[in-house]
Amino acid sequence: MEPKLVVVGSVAYDHVETPWETIAEVLGGSATHFSLASELLVHTGVVAVVGDDFKKSDWQRMEHRGIDLTGLKRTEGLTFRWGGRYDEHLKERTTLFTHLNVFAQFSPEIPAEYRDAPYIFLANIDPDLQHLVLDQVNNPKWVGLDSMNFWITGKKESLVRLLARVHTFFLNDSEAFELTGFRDAFRAAAAIRAMGPKVVVLKKGEHGSVLFVGDEVFSVPALVLPEVKDPTGAGDTYAGGMAGTLARLDDLSPEAMHFAAVVGTCLSSMCVEQFGPDGPCSSDLEALNRRLELFDRQVRHSGRRIS
Amino acid sequence: MEPKLVVVGSVAYDHVETPWETIAEVLGGSATHFSLASELLVHTGVVAVVGDDFKKSDWQRMEHRGIDLTGLKRTEGLTFRWGGRYDEHLKERTTLFTHLNVFAQFSPEIPAEYRDAPYIFLANIDPDLQHLVLDQVNNPKWVGLDSMNFWITGKKESLVRLLARVHTFFLNDSEAFELTGFRDAFRAAAAIRAMGPKVVVLKKGEHGSVLFVGDEVFSVPALVLPEVKDPTGAGDTYAGGMAGTLARLDDLSPEAMHFAAVVGTCLSSMCVEQFGPDGPCSSDLEALNRRLELFDRQVRHSGRRIS
Repeated sequence: MEPKLVVVGSVAYDHVETPWETIAEVLGGSATHFSLASELLVHTGVVAVVGDDFKKSDWQRMEHRGIDLTGLKRTEGLTFRWGGRYDEHLKERTTLFTHLNVFAQFSPEIPAEYRDAPYIFLANIDPDLQHLVLDQVNNPKWVGLDSMNFWITGKKESLVRLLARVHTFFLNDSEAFELTGFRDAFRAAAAIRAMGPKVVVLKKGEHGSVLFVGDEVFSVPALVLPEVKDPTGAGDTYAGGMAGTLARLDDLSPEAMHFAAVVGTCLSSMCVEQFGPDGPCSSDLEALNRRLELFDRQVRHSGRRIS
Repeated sequence: MEPKLVVVGSVAYDHVETPWETIAEVLGGSATHFSLASELLVHTGVVAVVGDDFKKSDWQRMEHRGIDLTGLKRTEGLTFRWGGRYDEHLKERTTLFTHLNVFAQFSPEIPAEYRDAPYIFLANIDPDLQHLVLDQVNNPKWVGLDSMNFWITGKKESLVRLLARVHTFFLNDSEAFELTGFRDAFRAAAAIRAMGPKVVVLKKGEHGSVLFVGDEVFSVPALVLPEVKDPTGAGDTYAGGMAGTLARLDDLSPEAMHFAAVVGTCLSSMCVEQFGPDGPCSSDLEALNRRLELFDRQVRHSGRRIS
């Protein structure tokens, strides 16, 4: 079966330090977190590269989940490694190391069977490569984009050209400021939408996210959880849950966008409860619906008025 | 008519600097912001002190709103003055000066006609004085409390004794950490509830608030606004809206708490759009209901599940 959703990004081994625990060589990367979440909702293909040290068990883990790995290339060398340390609030993150390894030579090649996928997500890589992806696919219905300050600063021209080619742009407030010069969400989102994207998703970490869709603003708080272990991958899991829902429903209406963001929020709440991708990885639709019920309990209010 | 809700706190003149504008001698203070919001919902009495420089027009402004000012004492000297400066994000606030003036000698005297008020709010003052207030009232149905790090550090014993006498405690995350030693909201709220309060309201500024009520957690995001001018008073306005709603409905159920927090959120969104208390001050129930409608549009989701 051809994937309905394709993600292009990284598959990596992460080293994560929190004040309470250190985990080394845990399966990570944007495409990993994204696809483990989205595959729960819709058949997903991954375009990425790993080294010959990539463990068979990790490959199988993604395969057993159902993810299409035709686009996951294995080449000579070491898999991408990233290390980060969180502060005591699990808010500030310091990058300890970034060893691109085989990822340094990555040039995405979209397999023939992925080219008609109607939903495409460009996880955070060089915007020049993100252009290359779009050059290889046939008129997708929806393109989602993630980036980072590094590219906004270093390859702004390429990124701005890219924005004209995408439907939904995911970014945080410091990236929004870097890109637009506006500190407030409303103005920044308007400036970004003027560059092309119909939808802007402002990610606020533990505080949730805000969607700017046409004239509508949707505020989606994060779930309040008894325990958070590791925020790594939460943003990619959120995007995977959102894109997976849009593709599953095949609906880009504002209401579908809002619901998809709620699903992304629920899946990312499972992600942060565990180190690595175990949370969403081990979940099923029943567990997701239980989490949607928890979201309802925490967020849904009565719609009551003062009389 | 005797007030159903009584607030004890400060009435002040504020000096507010934002990166774009400076406003001096604007009507402020916790009891002011609180009562201008709550009076919209329920008849409110104020216990506070002002100096003989307090402008007649400001007294009338509160009176015309309908607030009972029997408990507002005018004495010789200057009214409390506070000055603060906001950073470019309107997030960090530096206190420029605090001139207590007549407030230095403030010892709250509850007028006879306030003593049976079923709803009492203790705005941020010395916890010893907050005890004095509760000593003078007759078994209120609900007591809400606000405090600050200054008292948590300096008068912890008095504050902890006070917690056993209140129903709802409003605080932010740094205060929760200072008080409990826990950085995560869940544990901090549990520790605080073990000290007495049935309900903990964790205030998160521009990110909204989280309520811990029995086994329930309610997450109430702030409204996303096109323009924020001055966050001063937002917390007191929120508390005024919440307490006013509880008193109006005379309902302390979890559902009423949740709705009351939404009303508080809506009123505080009007507060931050203007300097001083003009926003809630000039609003009526119709404007509040329009704001509740906006909250619905931004926050209410479908309750849908994945099928």
